[in-house]
Amino acid sequence: MARKAARKTAGRSATAKRPGGKSSVKTKGAAKSKAKTRKPAAPKAKPKPGAKRGGAQILSDQKPPANPTLIEVTRGEMVESRHRVAVAVVDAQGKLVESWGDIERPIYGRSAVKPLQALPLLETGAADNFGLGEPEIALACASHNGEPLHTDRVRRWLARIGCEISDLECGAHLPLHEPTMLQLIANGGDLTAIYNNCSGKHSGFLTTARHEGEPTHGYVRYEHPVQQRVTRAMSEMTGLDLSRAPRGIDGCGIPVLGLPLRAMALGLARMADPRKLSADRANACKRILQSVMAWPMLVGGTGRFGSTLMATLKGRFLLKGGAEGVYAGILPSLGLGVAIKADDGAGRAAETAMAQTLRRLKLISAAETKMLADLLTPPVLNRALLEVGRIRSTGEGRF
Amino acid sequence: MARKAARKTAGRSATAKRPGGKSSVKTKGAAKSKAKTRKPAAPKAKPKPGAKRGGAQILSDQKPPANPTLIEVTRGEMVESRHRVAVAVVDAQGKLVESWGDIERPIYGRSAVKPLQALPLLETGAADNFGLGEPEIALACASHNGEPLHTDRVRRWLARIGCEISDLECGAHLPLHEPTMLQLIANGGDLTAIYNNCSGKHSGFLTTARHEGEPTHGYVRYEHPVQQRVTRAMSEMTGLDLSRAPRGIDGCGIPVLGLPLRAMALGLARMADPRKLSADRANACKRILQSVMAWPMLVGGTGRFGSTLMATLKGRFLLKGGAEGVYAGILPSLGLGVAIKADDGAGRAAETAMAQTLRRLKLISAAETKMLADLLTPPVLNRALLEVGRIRSTGEGRF
Repeated sequence: MARKAARKTAGRSATAKRPGGKSSVKTKGAAKSKAKTRKPAAPKAKPKPGAKRGGAQILSDQKPPANPTLIEVTRGEMVESRHRVAVAVVDAQGKLVESWGDIERPIYGRSAVKPLQALPLLETGAADNFGLGEPEIALACASHNGEPLHTDRVRRWLARIGCEISDLECGAHLPLHEPTMLQLIANGGDLTAIYNNCSGKHSGFLTTARHEGEPTHGYVRYEHPVQQRVTRAMSEMTGLDLSRAPRGIDGCGIPVLGLPLRAMALGLARMADPRKLSADRANACKRILQSVMAWPMLVGGTGRFGSTLMATLKGRFLLKGGAEGVYAGILPSLGLGVAIKADDGAGRAAETAMAQTLRRLKLISAAETKMLADLLTPPVLNRALLEVGRIRSTGEGRF
Repeated sequence: MARKAARKTAGRSATAKRPGGKSSVKTKGAAKSKAKTRKPAAPKAKPKPGAKRGGAQILSDQKPPANPTLIEVTRGEMVESRHRVAVAVVDAQGKLVESWGDIERPIYGRSAVKPLQALPLLETGAADNFGLGEPEIALACASHNGEPLHTDRVRRWLARIGCEISDLECGAHLPLHEPTMLQLIANGGDLTAIYNNCSGKHSGFLTTARHEGEPTHGYVRYEHPVQQRVTRAMSEMTGLDLSRAPRGIDGCGIPVLGLPLRAMALGLARMADPRKLSADRANACKRILQSVMAWPMLVGGTGRFGSTLMATLKGRFLLKGGAEGVYAGILPSLGLGVAIKADDGAGRAAETAMAQTLRRLKLISAAETKMLADLLTPPVLNRALLEVGRIRSTGEGRF
């Protein structure tokens, strides 16, 4: 609940530091940490709505979607809050198996598409060149908690490719895992980019740059070969020319590209069922899937929805969430991809919608649903840890 | 951004402690702090949907509202997330001045109705009996940051009424103010209920119990005279029989009562324009309004939307937010009350909708809107504190 409370000032104060920079979390330093908002260096990053970029079609805002209210949050005797969610379930041929809401409207996949973004790490040969194993591949797909199991491995990985923590351009934030955060602060440790939930993905980016002999500086920029390879792989997997996609900057500094939920689900489905892909790509897909499913705790960590569900029902699916209410599922046994976006950006809505989708696809049995009730339809707790409500399916979406 | 990240595990892990209990935030203690979810002691607290309570009509879920998309969150070249919001602007006679969306559906006012909940503190004579001044009355209406300016005053207040921190039944959570939180942890201080953002309101409850010679234990329960007085005052101000209202438990343990947004706005309007109320109540309303407007930083704190806007445009309005996307405005110069609820519970939506409502009501000028742009239409920052988007009005709501 402390974490929930912490939201209140989110976006108004921050301890995040310049990319790769160190800052002590000792109280003195921290009290001074209120940094100024910086405007993006490249004017491209924030064009006016409706503006054009290099002749490409830029989407301005459209009529808001009328997505179904799939998830509700109860408190006592009432529904207190409601979430509208769109869901696309697609097979590797692009056939729409099920859907709810507007799945053609572009969304940003955020961290949920990390498994797709990891393809070049395998396909360039960089992973093998540097002897990376399943744990590193899983970390390349991770939005991790910053626990020692994550940061120790990322630290060793960086050493292996001859990089420093200061080469990470993802910025720093306090570890998501509360006991780790408390320990770091209590010990007066340095808050570095290693604790950023994306430090594994960024280590993957650095690895491909090293392997290809490219400068590592600026690897987060759209124009850098690292991001160009990612965009190419994403384009091929989703069947879209993403060079023309609406663009923004992710929390960790890399480009985000707008693509319809349906196309995102297709990219994920092709990872689930890679038979029609080239041998190299199919092999990369299989290794990514295998690595994440074998090391679910590395992809998130203690207490996290995706990690816990993957660890409990081992080998059934790859689950990966992203900021602003995005969730991805790769379902190898069904050869399907699932892409989810909550209109309002709420992670609780995306997680519960994913749980319900997996139930509906019979990847979670009725008995397991009962056993995992606190994960699939999580309780709302008050400060005294009393259960005061539930996050659950509304039933509106045939869930 | 660290705070934003912290959300990810909200509701899945927690450091909150039993009400009033102490717990060290030293790392050792904290690592062990993962408490079990407790079921409510009273079965009433979580009835089945559609169940009846003592013959009263209990609302089960209805068709979700089709509220307008008033707020959008941009990232780069797209709108990334959207929020549906209902707004009621009402005068003291109950006349609807403006509204957006469904304002008849019951919502929980959460912490946004704290100014109404503070009425008994004044009306019983408890505040005067214990010599409370404007700062304590402001704190009774606060969802504060847990900064020293808040906790030092609450500590002295508790001593004045002969209570201990352990008498607070609101539970504990880490201070919302990040530098204070870091300092507390770095110093290995005790995490007590004094840091709970509601510790001022609960001190007010304890004060009325002390004044009336009632037992303080259990003052958070619906049946306790403290809460009965609050319910009566709320009923009178909103014109509803709240003994029949749908009920739940708030984050801090006290009852929450479902009431239409329109009725909440009426209660607030009567505080804004108390001429038709009894002399005692009118006096209490004026003192609450005056205290909050005179001490805006005590009601929230550093960096908080409501505090900052009240402090910048001093004396124009009382603003008070609540969890799950609720916001209240008391506008004495216009004699109006404003009640806002974001469907999805997003605080960012409620704040920006309140800013736009105040603009529309001409309580914020065009020049001030420009000057306060980062507060009224806040930037979305990435981990490196680069501005990557904005939270803003869609224009759909004639905003």
